[in-house]
Amino acid sequence: MRTIKLTLAYDGTAYAGWQVQRGAKTIQEVIETALAKITGETIRVMASGRTDAGVHALGQVVGFRTETPLSAEVLTRALNAELPRDVAVLEAAEVPEGFHATLDAKRKRYRYVIYDGPVRDVFRRRTSWHCPWGLDAEAMDRAAQALCGTHDFSSFETRGSERKTSVRTVYEIRVRRGEGGDRHAITIEVEADGFLYNMVRTMVGTLARVGRGARPESWVAEVLAAADRRAAGPTAPPQGLFLVEVEYDGGKTDNEE
Amino acid sequence: MRTIKLTLAYDGTAYAGWQVQRGAKTIQEVIETALAKITGETIRVMASGRTDAGVHALGQVVGFRTETPLSAEVLTRALNAELPRDVAVLEAAEVPEGFHATLDAKRKRYRYVIYDGPVRDVFRRRTSWHCPWGLDAEAMDRAAQALCGTHDFSSFETRGSERKTSVRTVYEIRVRRGEGGDRHAITIEVEADGFLYNMVRTMVGTLARVGRGARPESWVAEVLAAADRRAAGPTAPPQGLFLVEVEYDGGKTDNEE
Repeated sequence: MRTIKLTLAYDGTAYAGWQVQRGAKTIQEVIETALAKITGETIRVMASGRTDAGVHALGQVVGFRTETPLSAEVLTRALNAELPRDVAVLEAAEVPEGFHATLDAKRKRYRYVIYDGPVRDVFRRRTSWHCPWGLDAEAMDRAAQALCGTHDFSSFETRGSERKTSVRTVYEIRVRRGEGGDRHAITIEVEADGFLYNMVRTMVGTLARVGRGARPESWVAEVLAAADRRAAGPTAPPQGLFLVEVEYDGGKTDNEE
Repeated sequence: MRTIKLTLAYDGTAYAGWQVQRGAKTIQEVIETALAKITGETIRVMASGRTDAGVHALGQVVGFRTETPLSAEVLTRALNAELPRDVAVLEAAEVPEGFHATLDAKRKRYRYVIYDGPVRDVFRRRTSWHCPWGLDAEAMDRAAQALCGTHDFSSFETRGSERKTSVRTVYEIRVRRGEGGDRHAITIEVEADGFLYNMVRTMVGTLARVGRGARPESWVAEVLAAADRRAAGPTAPPQGLFLVEVEYDGGKTDNEE
């Protein structure tokens, strides 16, 4: 048996999220179907974490075990030929036996994109949240710094997932305007050792209130301290969210979700 | 009667092109349907030119006559509320009677986007041509300069449209790598007084042969001189093409298509 690690990009628009579920098209299902066709084996893949319906990935990581003798390069090309156009394998690599895409993930980085032009951008409708009222990205960035560090993030968690603790460490959070030269694009990037369910989207919904001037910058620290979901802003919609990167170092962490 | 000029953006993916046709969804049709709903009038809109199935616009211009008393600003908001999510009005303005969106267009600018990364970009599949073999954008830019100026562009025309002459003036053509910070994005921008049917897409198909090294840079001048469509490269696919801008000066030109 060999263990293979895949790095994937996908446009989540047409999918009911990562995880296989009855009667809905999911990313996991199209990956497993393509692997079955190529290898002739029934393969179960494990991801670094689930992504919700409509959420995208630039660098989701999955692992699986296989008997196939195909090289990583041939496997990549065969999968990309077999997969639907909105899912792609960026890289495949053989890794030591025992690699666990979920449990071994050490850090993850998410990006959320807001478009705040007065008229919707027709090319960003599937990949951003349209806030036509305009936002103060610098105020959002200053306010966001309260979320850095190790905290109980209960205020930014939608219940419904199992987790041992709601304490996470946010290593970096940055709000920037002008990504790709577009002055109406605001990107919020968050890197942490793990994320609670809807954590990034609730942070974004909260920061957007500050950006609009409906709440002072100091409010974000109050929301965090409340440790109560009702204290935070709304959950931002899924289509602006991208899983950018998952970092591994081979060792296990205890920050599984 | 008032005459209104609209500037439109649209994602052409789901449409059979600009022009109304039986049994197919077109941009013209959704605009006219929205205008009928808002004004109660049967309005026929005229565009600067047709765009083909799958072709996009960042700044298509259309004109129409109406009895509506709605201000340009109110009309813009009402149309954007009524239109499907993949079509948007960027601007509306009242213009002098006699404005003709097609005949008065003085210059147009098109952009074509190629993505030449080895693996497809799932977020660009509807808005670029994927050339996984890699291209020399600098060689394409040098070769493209042969197309500047006033020439008979028969080699770059697909027959099937009425036009008085196949002579056009190309004011500028630029091939650049790295748009929006993406090193695999190549953009070809062409500004001219008018375009023959499939002219940009055939230029791009021809330049891509040079970029791949299949033809020397000097070949583009030979293709132009041949004045024969069979001399050129293939027509690049529609989804990479954007109508960027249409320029008017109020005077008529004789470069209508």
